[in-house]
Amino acid sequence: MKTHLNSNDLQQMDQRFRAAFINSITGFKSLCLVGTKDNTGATNLAVFSSLLHFGANPAIMGLLVRPDSVDRHTLSNISETGFFTVNHVSETFYQLAHQTSARYPKDVSEFDACNLSADYKDNFFAPYVLGSPLQIGLSLQQKISIELNGTILVLGKVEHVYLESAAIQQDGFVDLESLGSITVSGLDSYHRTQRINRLSYAKVNQKLTIVPLGSKEPQNFEE
Amino acid sequence: MKTHLNSNDLQQMDQRFRAAFINSITGFKSLCLVGTKDNTGATNLAVFSSLLHFGANPAIMGLLVRPDSVDRHTLSNISETGFFTVNHVSETFYQLAHQTSARYPKDVSEFDACNLSADYKDNFFAPYVLGSPLQIGLSLQQKISIELNGTILVLGKVEHVYLESAAIQQDGFVDLESLGSITVSGLDSYHRTQRINRLSYAKVNQKLTIVPLGSKEPQNFEE
Repeated sequence: MKTHLNSNDLQQMDQRFRAAFINSITGFKSLCLVGTKDNTGATNLAVFSSLLHFGANPAIMGLLVRPDSVDRHTLSNISETGFFTVNHVSETFYQLAHQTSARYPKDVSEFDACNLSADYKDNFFAPYVLGSPLQIGLSLQQKISIELNGTILVLGKVEHVYLESAAIQQDGFVDLESLGSITVSGLDSYHRTQRINRLSYAKVNQKLTIVPLGSKEPQNFEE
Repeated sequence: MKTHLNSNDLQQMDQRFRAAFINSITGFKSLCLVGTKDNTGATNLAVFSSLLHFGANPAIMGLLVRPDSVDRHTLSNISETGFFTVNHVSETFYQLAHQTSARYPKDVSEFDACNLSADYKDNFFAPYVLGSPLQIGLSLQQKISIELNGTILVLGKVEHVYLESAAIQQDGFVDLESLGSITVSGLDSYHRTQRINRLSYAKVNQKLTIVPLGSKEPQNFEE
């Protein structure tokens, strides 16, 4: 049986029910831990499912934050210092990652409270998560206020990337499954993935082919 | 062995290699087909991996589009008419979805070219994808130009949602795996998922528990 819900039905939903529902229907999401530090040296770590690719050249990522939520310390640290890290999450520590969403006071570091270790390298200001399979250091470029609902879109430029060399394929594709990165749906559902296939660059009147891992297949060059 | 790449290394990469690399490192992404129609009745369908949850009340989703890419017809139709649909993709038709990324001319509908059928209902202007397990009708609220790289963020309000009733859990969470929705990484890698667990709402000094499907566990009410 099919359910049809219109905007009025969504409006009538209990607040928690609606939050779980709407957060689910955008589909599977990127899962990451965002590491920051304020100017006194206090660190913060928060789990996010709102990271989005904005462009490859320059390499820009966007992070949507809610200033009235547990995201608020992340936002204030990025605003104050201009730096943050994005760290992929694997099955070995996803429960610790989820625990960072509890409302810890500002003077408690989620690194300590959640048993995760800060990892500093190459003189980058913000802390990475030790053991994360893919770590990215970003510099703040722009904050965009979304007036529709009071959220803030933080745009960062990729300054550093760390990952296992073997995950990088000959054409630049990164095999996230080999790294153990997982995905999230809704507010709290964690999923491992299983590759169906990579597909060749789509062209008009040309049959798609399957791209084996390790291939040099030229890819879409729209960045 | 670990690889470290800095912003200079990224700059030096071959353009296609960089596009594949940077598109990969944001993690697993939402996969959807976006359906639109222009004022002459010509339909368009395009695969996207840039859908982001912006808020639950009002229910807002953002779609990042590249005006110089195959996304351009989607953008012009949304601008012209104010409506679009988001349709989840399942393993049964992911190859057809991928094929919509070929550069078809404006007078060719990807519905026809890629063997997908338009589905109209409840007097909504834009076409859904027949057979998609989760269909969303949205109205344009705002377009935000991202000057850093010339992309445009399209914000839409959810007007209609259609899905199999059994996928909606008692607390509002939607079981995307039961619907068959899949995820994408990089530019062209498609993945099914396997749930690890749902976790309880995180609180300071309280142990997380696993939330079985069908549970009434109260969830995070930050929308």
